[in-house]
Amino acid sequence: MIVIKKSCQSDPSGRRLESTLRDLGLRPHVVPGHDLIVLECTANERLLGTLRGCCDFEQVKIVPANYALCSRQYQAGDTVVNVRGVRVGGGYLAVIAGPCSIESEARLAEVGRRVRAAGANILRGGAFKPRSCPYSFQGLGTDGLKILRSVGEELGMPTVTEVMDPRQVELVARCADLVQVGARNMQNFDLLKEVGRAGKPALLKRGMGATVKDLLTSAEYVLAHGNPHVILCERGVRSFEDSTRNMLDLAAVPNVQGLSHLPIIVDPSHATGRPDLIPAMALAAVAARADGIHIEVHQDPASALSDGPQALLPEQFEDLMQEVFLLADVLDRFIDPCPDTSA
Amino acid sequence: MIVIKKSCQSDPSGRRLESTLRDLGLRPHVVPGHDLIVLECTANERLLGTLRGCCDFEQVKIVPANYALCSRQYQAGDTVVNVRGVRVGGGYLAVIAGPCSIESEARLAEVGRRVRAAGANILRGGAFKPRSCPYSFQGLGTDGLKILRSVGEELGMPTVTEVMDPRQVELVARCADLVQVGARNMQNFDLLKEVGRAGKPALLKRGMGATVKDLLTSAEYVLAHGNPHVILCERGVRSFEDSTRNMLDLAAVPNVQGLSHLPIIVDPSHATGRPDLIPAMALAAVAARADGIHIEVHQDPASALSDGPQALLPEQFEDLMQEVFLLADVLDRFIDPCPDTSA
Amino acid sequence: MIVIKKSCQSDPSGRRLESTLRDLGLRPHVVPGHDLIVLECTANERLLGTLRGCCDFEQVKIVPANYALCSRQYQAGDTVVNVRGVRVGGGYLAVIAGPCSIESEARLAEVGRRVRAAGANILRGGAFKPRSCPYSFQGLGTDGLKILRSVGEELGMPTVTEVMDPRQVELVARCADLVQVGARNMQNFDLLKEVGRAGKPALLKRGMGATVKDLLTSAEYVLAHGNPHVILCERGVRSFEDSTRNMLDLAAVPNVQGLSHLPIIVDPSHATGRPDLIPAMALAAVAARADGIHIEVHQDPASALSDGPQALLPEQFEDLMQEVFLLADVLDRFIDPCPDTSA
Amino acid sequence: MIVIKKSCQSDPSGRRLESTLRDLGLRPHVVPGHDLIVLECTANERLLGTLRGCCDFEQVKIVPANYALCSRQYQAGDTVVNVRGVRVGGGYLAVIAGPCSIESEARLAEVGRRVRAAGANILRGGAFKPRSCPYSFQGLGTDGLKILRSVGEELGMPTVTEVMDPRQVELVARCADLVQVGARNMQNFDLLKEVGRAGKPALLKRGMGATVKDLLTSAEYVLAHGNPHVILCERGVRSFEDSTRNMLDLAAVPNVQGLSHLPIIVDPSHATGRPDLIPAMALAAVAARADGIHIEVHQDPASALSDGPQALLPEQFEDLMQEVFLLADVLDRFIDPCPDTSA
Repeated sequence: MIVIKKSCQSDPSGRRLESTLRDLGLRPHVVPGHDLIVLECTANERLLGTLRGCCDFEQVKIVPANYALCSRQYQAGDTVVNVRGVRVGGGYLAVIAGPCSIESEARLAEVGRRVRAAGANILRGGAFKPRSCPYSFQGLGTDGLKILRSVGEELGMPTVTEVMDPRQVELVARCADLVQVGARNMQNFDLLKEVGRAGKPALLKRGMGATVKDLLTSAEYVLAHGNPHVILCERGVRSFEDSTRNMLDLAAVPNVQGLSHLPIIVDPSHATGRPDLIPAMALAAVAARADGIHIEVHQDPASALSDGPQALLPEQFEDLMQEVFLLADVLDRFIDPCPDTSA
Repeated sequence: MIVIKKSCQSDPSGRRLESTLRDLGLRPHVVPGHDLIVLECTANERLLGTLRGCCDFEQVKIVPANYALCSRQYQAGDTVVNVRGVRVGGGYLAVIAGPCSIESEARLAEVGRRVRAAGANILRGGAFKPRSCPYSFQGLGTDGLKILRSVGEELGMPTVTEVMDPRQVELVARCADLVQVGARNMQNFDLLKEVGRAGKPALLKRGMGATVKDLLTSAEYVLAHGNPHVILCERGVRSFEDSTRNMLDLAAVPNVQGLSHLPIIVDPSHATGRPDLIPAMALAAVAARADGIHIEVHQDPASALSDGPQALLPEQFEDLMQEVFLLADVLDRFIDPCPDTSA
Repeated sequence: MIVIKKSCQSDPSGRRLESTLRDLGLRPHVVPGHDLIVLECTANERLLGTLRGCCDFEQVKIVPANYALCSRQYQAGDTVVNVRGVRVGGGYLAVIAGPCSIESEARLAEVGRRVRAAGANILRGGAFKPRSCPYSFQGLGTDGLKILRSVGEELGMPTVTEVMDPRQVELVARCADLVQVGARNMQNFDLLKEVGRAGKPALLKRGMGATVKDLLTSAEYVLAHGNPHVILCERGVRSFEDSTRNMLDLAAVPNVQGLSHLPIIVDPSHATGRPDLIPAMALAAVAARADGIHIEVHQDPASALSDGPQALLPEQFEDLMQEVFLLADVLDRFIDPCPDTSA
Repeated sequence: MIVIKKSCQSDPSGRRLESTLRDLGLRPHVVPGHDLIVLECTANERLLGTLRGCCDFEQVKIVPANYALCSRQYQAGDTVVNVRGVRVGGGYLAVIAGPCSIESEARLAEVGRRVRAAGANILRGGAFKPRSCPYSFQGLGTDGLKILRSVGEELGMPTVTEVMDPRQVELVARCADLVQVGARNMQNFDLLKEVGRAGKPALLKRGMGATVKDLLTSAEYVLAHGNPHVILCERGVRSFEDSTRNMLDLAAVPNVQGLSHLPIIVDPSHATGRPDLIPAMALAAVAARADGIHIEVHQDPASALSDGPQALLPEQFEDLMQEVFLLADVLDRFIDPCPDTSA
C-alpha cells in the first residue's frame, strides 16, 4: 500500500493529483480528516517512480497494507491517549479495573473506591453486555450507563464501558470517557465507523479468532473515520488448550508495538478466566512493557451477575498492585493517578 | 437449562406459574411468541421434582443450556426452511451460488443464468461487504441490493445477501429472500435480534473463532426474537494450517444435526479459499448429508472486486454440479429447482 | 529446492558434478538409492542458469523445499502402494478396520471376520500402544504382534500395526504388512529413518499439531531412507472446538493430492472420537476422493482396553460399508478384495 | 485416580493389599521405586470407602488422573532440580543459553564465555538436531557431544543437549548434565522411559500441539521410570497467529505451578522465532515467576547452521540479562552462578 500526501504547493486542493492517479488506472482513497490518499495496490518500484514523477515531492510513502494510519511507518512516535487526564501509551500505563457488569450504584461505588485506592486509574463496568446466551443477564443498559457516569464523577475516575450497537455509540460516548468495542465486535465494521465519529477515545479488544494484523486493520477503521485516540487490548485468543478460557498471546504486545504507534494493554481476566492465573499474567504484561492492564474485580464473585468466577477480590487486586508498582518502578513505567475529583 | 410450557388448564395465563417460580428464587424468562418459560439454571433432580409438583403436568423439559429453541430436545423433527419456494433441510439441499460482490447488473445476470442452468437454486451476491481493510471495495450498497432483487426476479431465483448493520436489516429483508449474517457478525447480538424480527429466513454463518455450540447459541438469539427460519452455515475456522484460508470443520454437519433441528449448509469457498480444493469439499459436504452448499462463482476471478481468487469459473461449477447430482441421487437427497419466473 | 540428476553421459559417476557444486559454494546432498542430488537453497534464476550450464542437460528441476521425493513435480503419476495384494492409491481405496488394541486372538478374529465380510481389506490392531498415561494399558506387545500375524494369515487379510520404538521396527515389519507410525511420532525422525529401511510399506499419520507440509516433510524422511511405499493418513488436528476429540481437516486430502503423488487416507475414528460422527465423515472422505478410510471397530466398545468410546460396532460398520460401496461406485473408485487365503 | 501407599504395618510387603484390590475388580499398578499403587479409575465415594476399609490407614489419596507423581497433591513442596550445582525451581532460576546447534569448539566456547559472563548458568547446544527437512544439517552428532562436554568443563558450566533416539540416551547422559527431550518427542514414550532410567536430570519441552496436562502426563513417564529430576519447558504452541513462529502460552507457568511441584522454564526463542520479541517475553517469563529461561544466542545468526534467524546476539543477551537481574531482585528470585571451574 502507498500513501500520498494529497496537497502540495503546485496543487493545493489535491484535485489534479487525484485525477492523475485515476488516469493511471488507480483507485485513490482520500482519508477524511487527513491530507492523505491511500492506494490499495501492490507497491512496486515502477509505480513508485511514476508517482514520484507526477507528485514532484517527497510525500510518497510505502506503508503496510490495511493499516496505514496505525503503522509505525506513518507515525514513528508513540501515540499517547488521554482518557480524561489519564495518559495511556508512551511509557504511561492504564490500570483499568472494576466489575464485569454494573449491578448497582452501591456495589460499583464500593469496588471503585477499593480499586482507586489500590492504584487503578480507570473504572470499568458493563452496561450493555454481549452474552452468548440470550437468556443470560444482558446488563442494566441505560440505567447502567447513568450509574457508571455518576460513580466515575464521584470518585474522579475516568470510565470505560462497552458499546455493541452503532445506534448506541452517541449515548455511550456521552456517558463514558473511553468507549470499548468488545472482542465479539472487533470486525463489526459499521460499529467501528460510528466509534470513529464518536469524539471519545476508543478501547478496541482483539477478537478471539483474530490475528494481530486483523486487530490493527480493525483499528484502521476507527482512525480512518476520524478518531486517532485508539487503545488496543490483547485479551486472549481461542486455542486447543482447554484448562484456560482463552490463550493469552502476550507476544502481541511487543509485536503490535513494533508495527504500530498505538498503545496496547492486556486483559488477563478474559485471557485466562482463572483468578489463580491473573496476577502472574498481569505482572508479565507489565514486564513485557504493555501500556496497561485491564482487570475484573468484584467484591463477591459468587454472586456476580456475569463472569464472576474470573474476578479478583478487591484484596487480591490490592496485593497485585503492590507488585505492579514495584515492576513499573524498576522498568521506568509510570501510572498516572486519577485526576482530582474537584477537577 | 429447563424449559416449561407456560400455560396449562389450571393456569391459562401462566401468571401463577411465573410467580411460583419467582418464589422459588428462580428468574423465569418468558420467550416472546412461544408458550415457554426458560430457566437458566443447573437442572437438578430436586428442582425438577419441585417444578413438576407445582406445574402438575408433563411440560417440564431439560434442554441444553443456551440453545433451548434450537435443540433437538425441544423440537425433534427437522426444520425445513422455505426460501421463496426452495426448501432447505429435511433432505432438501440448498445450492447457493453467485459472486462474492455484486459488481453490475450485467455481470450478476450472466453468472446467475449460468449457475441456475447448472442447478443452483439460490443466487448470492454481496451488496454490503465486510472488508478487513477500510480502503478495500465496500460493496455497491443500496444499488447492489436493487440489482440483486431485479436479477433474482428476472431469473426466478430466490436471493441471499449479507446484512452488517442493525439499521439496514429492514431494507435488506425487503430486497432479498434470505438474510445473511456473516462470520464476523456471528456474535453481533443486536444485529441478531433485528434479524429475529425481520420476517425473512436467515442464513447464519459460523464465526472463524466460534465453536459449534457458540453457533447454536447465536442462532438462539434469532429464534428467541421471533424468527424460526434459520439456516446455519459452516465456513471454516481459524487454525494453524497455513496452506488454506481456514480449516473446514466438516464434522460440524453431523454434530449440529445431532444437537439441533435447524438445517446446516457448507461453504467450501471461504473454508478453503482455493478453487482447487472447493469441488472435493463440496462433494464431501453432500456425502456428509449437509443441507446445502454455498459456492462463489465468478466469470472472471482475476478482475473480481473481492475474493476473486477463491471463486470457481461457471464451467467449473457446472462440472461440480454434475457430480453433486450423482451423489444426491445415490444418497436420496433432493435439490429443489428454482420456482418458475411466472410465479 | 533444486534437484539434479546425478549422473549423465559425460559424467557417469556424478563425481565431477558434485565437486562442481561444492565449488559453487553449495552443499550437495546425494539421496541414497536415487540418482539424485538435492540442494537445499533458494532456487533463483541465476543459480539455475549456472547449474544448467555446468550440467549440460535437462535434469535440473525445481521442486518444493523439504519434500522433494514426495512431490508431484518429482513424480507426476500417483503412487499405488501394494499392501500384500491390496492396492492403495491411484483410484484404489484402502478400507482399514479393526480394534484399537489387540486384546485376544478370539476377539481379534471375531472382529476381523466381521469387517472382512463387510468389505474391509486391511486389518488393524495395536500391539504397542502410545498411551498418554503411563498407568494405562500399554498393549500386549510381542504377543499382540503374533496374534495379529496369525489372525491376518487365517483370514487372508493384510495387517497394519503401530511401531513406536526404532528398536522394534524390524520385529514389527516381520509381523505386519503395513507398518504404522502414529501421530505422536510423526516427527520422531530416528523412527522414520528405521521405517525407511524396513522393507515394508508404511502408514504415516499426521501429527495433531502438524501442517500438511510437515506431514510431507516427515514422509520425505522415509522415502529418502529407501522406502517409497508410504501411505499418508489425515486423523484430525488439535483445535479450539471442544465437542470433538480433534478437528478433521478433510481439505488435506485434495491438498496433499495436489502436492504429492503419495496416497492419503482418512481416519474419522481418531479425528472425531465420536461414533455418531464417524459414518458421515467416512462417506465425506470417500466423496473427497481420499485413497482409503481407517475405522476402529470393536464388538463391545464398553469393555475395550483402549479408546472404546470411539469404536463402531460391527453392525454399524456394515451399514457404513454399504454406503461406502455406493459412493465408490458412482465416483469410479475401486476397493480391492482381500487376497485369497490360499494365496 | 487413586494412589495408595503399598505397605503398612499389618501388610509390610503390600501383597495382601494387591490381592484385595484385584478381588475388587481393580487393576493395581505398582510404581517401581515408589511405595505406591496407582489405580486408574474414576474415584468415587463408595470405592474410597471400601479402600479405606481394607487398607485401615490414611494413605489413600485422590490425585489427578495421569500425572500422579507430578501432582501437588502427591508432593506439596516445590521440586528443586540440581543440575551439577545449579539449582532450578523453588525460587531458583535457570538461565540456559547457547547456540541452536554446536558448530565447532571455537564457536561454542566463544558464545559460552559471553553468556556465562552475562549471567547464564547452563550452556545449551544441539548435537543431534530434529530437523523437519531430511536434507538440512542434522547436527554434529557424537562429535558435537564431545565438544559440549569439553566446553562445559572448561567454562565450569553445566550443559544441556537434546536426545532423540532411545539408543542414544546413555551416551547423551554421559556427556551432558541435563538431558533434553524436544517438543517433537514429547510423546515419544519409549524415549521418555529411557530418560527415566538415565540417571541425569531431564528437560522436557512441551509439544507444539500438546496441552498443559499432556505435558504433565509425559513427565509422569519419566518419574514413573525412576527419574524425579524433571524440568518442564513452555516453548510455544501452534496457533492461527501467523506473525510469530508459535504462540507462547505464558499462562502455562502459573498453571503448571498450581498443578505440579516440578519447575517450569520458558523458551521465548522457539516460542516467538523473532529476536525483536524475545527480550520482552523473557522478562515476562521472569515476572510470571517461571523457574528459568532458555535463550538461543549466536555470534553470527546469519551464518548459523540452524535456526539462526531466531538467535540473539551476545550483546543483546547481555542487555537482556541486566533487566532479568533487576526483575529477579525485585521479585526475590535467585540465579545461581556457575559452579567454579576448579570444582
